[in-house]
Amino acid sequence: MSGNSTRKTLADACGAAPATFAAWRDESLARRAEWLARAEALKPRLFRRNIAPSGLVRIARDEKAFLGWRAVSAGAAEAAQVRPLAVGDSFIFDFGEHIVGHLSFRLVGFDKPVDAPVRLSFFFAETPLELAPDLSVPELAHTISQAWIQCETTTFDDVPSHVRLPRRYAFRYVRVKVDACSGGGLFGLADITAEATTSADETRLLPWTPPSPEAARLDAIARRTLRDCMQTVFEDGPKRDRRLWLGDLRLEALANYATYRNLALVERSLFLLAGLADDDALVRSDAYERPVPQRGNCRILDYTALLAAAVREWLEAGGDRTAAESIWPLCARQAEFLLHAVDADGVFRDDGRWWCFIDHNAALDRQTAEQGAIAFGLRATIALALALGHDAEVTFLADAIACMERGARERLWDETRGVFVCENGGQVSQSGQAWMVLGGLVTGEEAQLCLLDTLANPAAVRPVSPYAVHGVVEALHAAGLHREANKRLYAYWGRMADAGADTFWEVFVPEDPLASPYGTPLLNSHCHAWSCAPAWFLRKVKRADCR
Amino acid sequence: MSGNSTRKTLADACGAAPATFAAWRDESLARRAEWLARAEALKPRLFRRNIAPSGLVRIARDEKAFLGWRAVSAGAAEAAQVRPLAVGDSFIFDFGEHIVGHLSFRLVGFDKPVDAPVRLSFFFAETPLELAPDLSVPELAHTISQAWIQCETTTFDDVPSHVRLPRRYAFRYVRVKVDACSGGGLFGLADITAEATTSADETRLLPWTPPSPEAARLDAIARRTLRDCMQTVFEDGPKRDRRLWLGDLRLEALANYATYRNLALVERSLFLLAGLADDDALVRSDAYERPVPQRGNCRILDYTALLAAAVREWLEAGGDRTAAESIWPLCARQAEFLLHAVDADGVFRDDGRWWCFIDHNAALDRQTAEQGAIAFGLRATIALALALGHDAEVTFLADAIACMERGARERLWDETRGVFVCENGGQVSQSGQAWMVLGGLVTGEEAQLCLLDTLANPAAVRPVSPYAVHGVVEALHAAGLHREANKRLYAYWGRMADAGADTFWEVFVPEDPLASPYGTPLLNSHCHAWSCAPAWFLRKVKRADCR
Repeated sequence: MSGNSTRKTLADACGAAPATFAAWRDESLARRAEWLARAEALKPRLFRRNIAPSGLVRIARDEKAFLGWRAVSAGAAEAAQVRPLAVGDSFIFDFGEHIVGHLSFRLVGFDKPVDAPVRLSFFFAETPLELAPDLSVPELAHTISQAWIQCETTTFDDVPSHVRLPRRYAFRYVRVKVDACSGGGLFGLADITAEATTSADETRLLPWTPPSPEAARLDAIARRTLRDCMQTVFEDGPKRDRRLWLGDLRLEALANYATYRNLALVERSLFLLAGLADDDALVRSDAYERPVPQRGNCRILDYTALLAAAVREWLEAGGDRTAAESIWPLCARQAEFLLHAVDADGVFRDDGRWWCFIDHNAALDRQTAEQGAIAFGLRATIALALALGHDAEVTFLADAIACMERGARERLWDETRGVFVCENGGQVSQSGQAWMVLGGLVTGEEAQLCLLDTLANPAAVRPVSPYAVHGVVEALHAAGLHREANKRLYAYWGRMADAGADTFWEVFVPEDPLASPYGTPLLNSHCHAWSCAPAWFLRKVKRADCR
Repeated sequence: MSGNSTRKTLADACGAAPATFAAWRDESLARRAEWLARAEALKPRLFRRNIAPSGLVRIARDEKAFLGWRAVSAGAAEAAQVRPLAVGDSFIFDFGEHIVGHLSFRLVGFDKPVDAPVRLSFFFAETPLELAPDLSVPELAHTISQAWIQCETTTFDDVPSHVRLPRRYAFRYVRVKVDACSGGGLFGLADITAEATTSADETRLLPWTPPSPEAARLDAIARRTLRDCMQTVFEDGPKRDRRLWLGDLRLEALANYATYRNLALVERSLFLLAGLADDDALVRSDAYERPVPQRGNCRILDYTALLAAAVREWLEAGGDRTAAESIWPLCARQAEFLLHAVDADGVFRDDGRWWCFIDHNAALDRQTAEQGAIAFGLRATIALALALGHDAEVTFLADAIACMERGARERLWDETRGVFVCENGGQVSQSGQAWMVLGGLVTGEEAQLCLLDTLANPAAVRPVSPYAVHGVVEALHAAGLHREANKRLYAYWGRMADAGADTFWEVFVPEDPLASPYGTPLLNSHCHAWSCAPAWFLRKVKRADCR
């Protein structure tokens, strides 16, 4: 990717020696197998907890509920168990909180042997919406696999028997429906149990006194979100994609340092991504654990910019210095990809070779945000180099950042309004200002004002994903606007909690409850790692800062 | 059951001592655990054979086909494998013959990792009819569990992976349909294989030269039927009910003696039924192997009449005499149940306490057939007693049979027409004459004429199940009408073969192709043990008899 363009880029302009990057590449490629082996060796054993349903619910239409439906108590869970069931019987078990794991139960007989197989359908749901009656997926909504919708129809030959459904699900509610059974020998369900799994160790949770009941409420939801995404890697969402993503990993890791402090899981996740770097030594944005570790196919520029930061933060949290040292060439190597994405005048322009993510918002012009993200990545690389004593190797990065500062100021800064705008069309966005601040391309009072002005500007493009809102909150903190950051945090995540979030969601657009990048909210993940911000921010921000 | 009636029965009238039956009962009850242990010890290891599909087919409407649909070749099986598949793709694999077993395959990826679960639906079919497009089960047809219909929808998390579906199916055709998958990482199928199982050992098949190509054709289908029903017990049908039934067992055992000679499987099946006798020492008509051996709930009077015959036939085929001796008290005990079902005047009258089966035909008045079946059972008990040297214990049975002969002659014989008729309504049926002949309640020329007249009488009630047709053919042989028996055999089973039977069916009514006792032929078993008659009759009947 780096060598195929005849266009002059910042990589050529900043004084970096191509041989340096080639050396980092070769060293990285040589270490991949070792990194992968280290990742495998760090695979955690999961903590398991058996949970009985807290009761039965029915799903009722509720115009006042954010998602339009709510779960209404429908009696004790025992009412659906150890009694004969018939075709069409249907129950929704509520497990009281969002969990990730396996469902098990016993199939029991009564007076006579059960003379035929029993066919049951299961629908696992994170929210009441997913169980709304007659909710169907529009035909055109299939932008991603409908198999993410957690439903199964399973036939059981043996009654009595103990059943543990083989797949793992993310759920609070389970609807069990009898699709077929015999009248000649009745059957029933008993001991319905969820076996919840996580690699978060509750006994290691760092002590923390929430400053308010509201902080405690948001923190509980955020920690549950984090806990349920912490499996054998940091997953983005345990319902979907159940995958390791570099962008989600960084935010999960930050929340994890402040709570469960599972440093080994961060190391495993980082080394899995590192070991699966491609043959150009580009760290892909995603990785698959199963069935065997596989490199993901995604090349998100703003995620590539996060590797050095994630490694440095892990090191600061107490991560092993030798391990960080081992991965240094790969972090340095990513800088070349970032530099090649920027024109020689210090400005990022999307030439279609990268996936520029930043947010799910399709209306967003990503130019300013990517400009800031790249600068963020370059600064993180310098900081990591400094921490590891490699700073002499990357002196050229300071020149590159200076060039990007000039480029941003000349091409992307609207002096009159005091905000960053995109070159084509002049779009102003919250994410654009946020990443410019995070990338250090604007500081001090200018940084504060560009953020505050844009937040107050209804015409500015707003983030639609908690990931992008996280970026805005992080930028407000970076600009020293701690009270505004906190206000935003409580407003957005508080509203999500008010909306009934049991864990924080992948997508939350307050004015558009059914928003989905996938055509239907049935495919949204309602426990999503990049949404666990409160667990970090609430702990890390000093109260004094927010007065 | 025997002691609750104040009605006077043949048990009271025939001179049997109640203490004798009580002793047989007590001895039987004491031996149940030993019989069950013996059955478990005899559980066979299954022979396994991997079969690749012979090709792809599509199911086409064909007015001339018996079931209305036929399978038409649609190319090589490879055409559906090792190529990217998309939502809605659907293939029907033809395995070339009916088999019982497990389906396995590999899920393979292509250029990119498969980024989402794959959801496939499977429909296993014994006949093309079951795969007819848009064939649905009428709402009112649910007299038995719809879960017998062999369909599954399964979600697979891992690609690549090797999959073996956990349930066993009976099938020749498998439709695989892609219900959901991702466009971001294509998947495909490879190495689709059926692992066929049976306890029939083809290497032990007794040599036999078919007298004609037609005999060879029918025998091949019959042996395949038998083979696929021979699993860890003699099942009635490997699709449905997958259960051990005494009536089916006797016919399977007879065919087995003439072919695979798996005497241990007969012994296991007999001892499983014996070991599960109820607390009155009644052998139930059915037994379940899984999940643990369980007594069936059915009390079919005409099946109870078969136990002694089945044991005697097994002994004659070379079964272990000690084992037969062990089970003798139970066989003798069943005679009391038979005697109690008959009124003191020697006539069977249905008082609703038994399930009188004989045939699936709802229009059949079962009185004459049950009368014959009971006499058949009593005679078989005498014959078994004689073989084991217990004849002195059962002298009263000869009196009982004589009483039933008188009763039949006085109450059920139409002297003018020379046929047996039922008391209420005077119904004449083929099954009624057949069982009277098999029970020896009519012999010689009278037996021949009552059979032939009834077979020629369009008003006589005809059998609708191959089980009942088997009875008629067996009765024709018993009456010495070997040519007529053979003619009937070739006509009925030959027509079933012409109808496309790959294995012989549970239900075959030539003039009603979609006949079903269950409201829909989708629930019929199309490989049914009681239909394997040709494998026995064709071998056992001397050619000279049929000239």
